Amino acid sequence: MDAPAAPNLPSIDTRRIALGVQYDGSPWAGWQTQPNGQTVQDALQRAMAQFAQKKILTTCAGRTDAGVHALEQVVHFDIALERDMSSWVRGVNSYLPSSIAVRWAKEVARGAALEQHNPFHARFSARGRTYHYVLYNNPVRTPLLRGKAGWVFRKLDVERMQEAALCLVGTHDFSAFRSAECQAKTPIKDMQQVRIVRQGDVIVFTLKASAFLHHMVRNIVGSLIFIGGERREVAWMREVLDSRDRQRAAPTFAPDGLYLAKVDYDPIWGLPQETAFLPWQ
Amino acid sequence: MDAPAAPNLPSIDTRRIALGVQYDGSPWAGWQTQPNGQTVQDALQRAMAQFAQKKILTTCAGRTDAGVHALEQVVHFDIALERDMSSWVRGVNSYLPSSIAVRWAKEVARGAALEQHNPFHARFSARGRTYHYVLYNNPVRTPLLRGKAGWVFRKLDVERMQEAALCLVGTHDFSAFRSAECQAKTPIKDMQQVRIVRQGDVIVFTLKASAFLHHMVRNIVGSLIFIGGERREVAWMREVLDSRDRQRAAPTFAPDGLYLAKVDYDPIWGLPQETAFLPWQ
Repeated sequence: MDAPAAPNLPSIDTRRIALGVQYDGSPWAGWQTQPNGQTVQDALQRAMAQFAQKKILTTCAGRTDAGVHALEQVVHFDIALERDMSSWVRGVNSYLPSSIAVRWAKEVARGAALEQHNPFHARFSARGRTYHYVLYNNPVRTPLLRGKAGWVFRKLDVERMQEAALCLVGTHDFSAFRSAECQAKTPIKDMQQVRIVRQGDVIVFTLKASAFLHHMVRNIVGSLIFIGGERREVAWMREVLDSRDRQRAAPTFAPDGLYLAKVDYDPIWGLPQETAFLPWQ
Repeated sequence: MDAPAAPNLPSIDTRRIALGVQYDGSPWAGWQTQPNGQTVQDALQRAMAQFAQKKILTTCAGRTDAGVHALEQVVHFDIALERDMSSWVRGVNSYLPSSIAVRWAKEVARGAALEQHNPFHARFSARGRTYHYVLYNNPVRTPLLRGKAGWVFRKLDVERMQEAALCLVGTHDFSAFRSAECQAKTPIKDMQQVRIVRQGDVIVFTLKASAFLHHMVRNIVGSLIFIGGERREVAWMREVLDSRDRQRAAPTFAPDGLYLAKVDYDPIWGLPQETAFLPWQ
């Protein structure tokens, strides 16, 4: 079954494969590999190595922090090994812990039809990212969403937060919501959508942008919660944004409710991406 | 604040209090206390003892098995201690692990208006119980519902299961769905409702009955899944029920998707019960 490696023809025999990966981030120290091996990338690469019987390095679309989840992270890797795409799903999943699953696999071909394109790259080919922040808004915490939602016991006014969030849409310098450790080249990002919906005691914030700075969603959500709980006026959001000063915004909110929901690519890649699945929407 | 115990007037000074308790059953060895202390009842009683500075024994409405969750378990206990009901919620919750929470507390008085009643009893005053079984029906498992939903990769036909479930409604001998360890006095129960709803890849089974035998919901769900997956005909459900023979039904299905959702009582007790909260409905 396995095609032998052809070192003299790497550009033909090496395939680039994209994976859709879902994970519950609560037991993991974030996406990116660490020496202690307790990250999602480490666990995924261990399972892939067991399946493929060789070391495989992966590149992801968006590195998530400790405790942050992914409905559909996208990763790519190169390999000289002939396997059905479905066996990359079933085979790798059989070695993965229950908190991580490969949802789909797709070869991202370098054929003639794609000659005008650069090769597919999980991070650099991405055109946009969508995150959800799930918040439980009730006087008493709920064990059934522990690790899966933030919790605010004070009643939040969704309309105030919606009004405050309007100023975020468009191209802005988001330095006020950027962590000190952020490695992005520029703090200027294009925010395409901010949607805030309440369903019973659950409030879901959906943010879509070209890219996000480190801690940007959690800092924005923390600031919106100040406004929703009437600790700040609606106009304060724009003041914070315009200040470009991280000292002005609210503290970084808990990772528990944050989900990397979707990464957008040119349809030409034909990725079998799923509708962002959020069980409680 | 604390009223002293009055041993000569126990019927007046001792209060009976009901609690609504929610839990994620995945880390626990079921409800009922065990010598190793790894049960929900043990954890709740430990937290109550820390709050009240005395040992408290609780009685629940329905003992759930290992890995089974509760949206709203109801328990009662007796105590000679004067505390606001809200402090029973906040105080006990501050000692509980994140997988368990007291959602409400209510004194169930023995006043003149209730003279014709027996004292409130979480188990014996209950008129009915509602359980949900949450099933994820997709070729690939989902990490975000691990421990919170059963998983069937074969596509299930909900209409077939609905048709098969009709024969369960009414008063029947449910011996075919009863575990060998069941301690119920009679296998005859009154099934008031069986509802099966699909929402995307999630199927929720809702069963309401006067009471349930041990493993009854999981055995019924397992058998319906055989029918939904076309491994058995629709008519097989009635054959199994009528046989009263545990050997005929499907194996007991996983505990992961099972939730004690609601326990019904006479409204005269005034329990502040919540609408059964299921995040993914």
